[in-house]
Amino acid sequence: MAETIFSKILRNEIPCHLVYEDAHVIAFLDINPLSKGHTVVIPREPAETLDQLSDDAAAALGRALPRIARAVLAATGARAFNVLQNNGATAHQAVFHVHFHIIPKLDDGSGLGIGWKPGKLAEPDGRALADAITSKL
Amino acid sequence: MAETIFSKILRNEIPCHLVYEDAHVIAFLDINPLSKGHTVVIPREPAETLDQLSDDAAAALGRALPRIARAVLAATGARAFNVLQNNGATAHQAVFHVHFHIIPKLDDGSGLGIGWKPGKLAEPDGRALADAITSKL
Repeated sequence: MAETIFSKILRNEIPCHLVYEDAHVIAFLDINPLSKGHTVVIPREPAETLDQLSDDAAAALGRALPRIARAVLAATGARAFNVLQNNGATAHQAVFHVHFHIIPKLDDGSGLGIGWKPGKLAEPDGRALADAITSKL
Repeated sequence: MAETIFSKILRNEIPCHLVYEDAHVIAFLDINPLSKGHTVVIPREPAETLDQLSDDAAAALGRALPRIARAVLAATGARAFNVLQNNGATAHQAVFHVHFHIIPKLDDGSGLGIGWKPGKLAEPDGRALADAITSKL
């Protein structure tokens, strides 16, 4: 895995506005926030994308998210928020160390913009696709 | 918490294309997918939004995400994907039972659309905001 800005933050080689840390996870403010309180949550374990993360690191990340989200909401007064985690350059990933964004959606409209163009799950292809995924688990 | 379509799926009262289940988590295909393999991952624990979820349910969700993501990638051939979790109607939440979307980003452009309008974290407000969040943890 290539060196990233998050590796340097984890080693305290560059500063960040830390909001949380435990044995597996740290969280800090995004320096280019989409809204007030936009926070980045990362595992200490090095992994480029979520699919490469160990069970233990992923469980620790999952456990931390609601705690950090509650604190972000309490500190900012936001009532709505998005959690976003991107994998791959075409999926908008910019730093290749796994990270979850916690992004308050504020009354002024700031926050994450979502483009949602749903299709329709066709039968019997839906069952075949689900079976194909299950067979890989 | 109000009854949702996901409560009915959890009780097997309405069908779904199940791809994964364990003691805490189930995952199934979204019936209105943004791309092939679009999967919804939910806790069995009832909670409207992520900030209301227990530590144990959140850890179980976190642990399941990479496993399910790997299977979605393997079954669809996708190499990029987004994980999205919405909280609150203004943040695009439509079903009020916590859920994570795993959305492949495919070469045909299908998948999640992301609107990203970053600002700049100003000093010394950044440190004060981080401290305010930390004080709520």
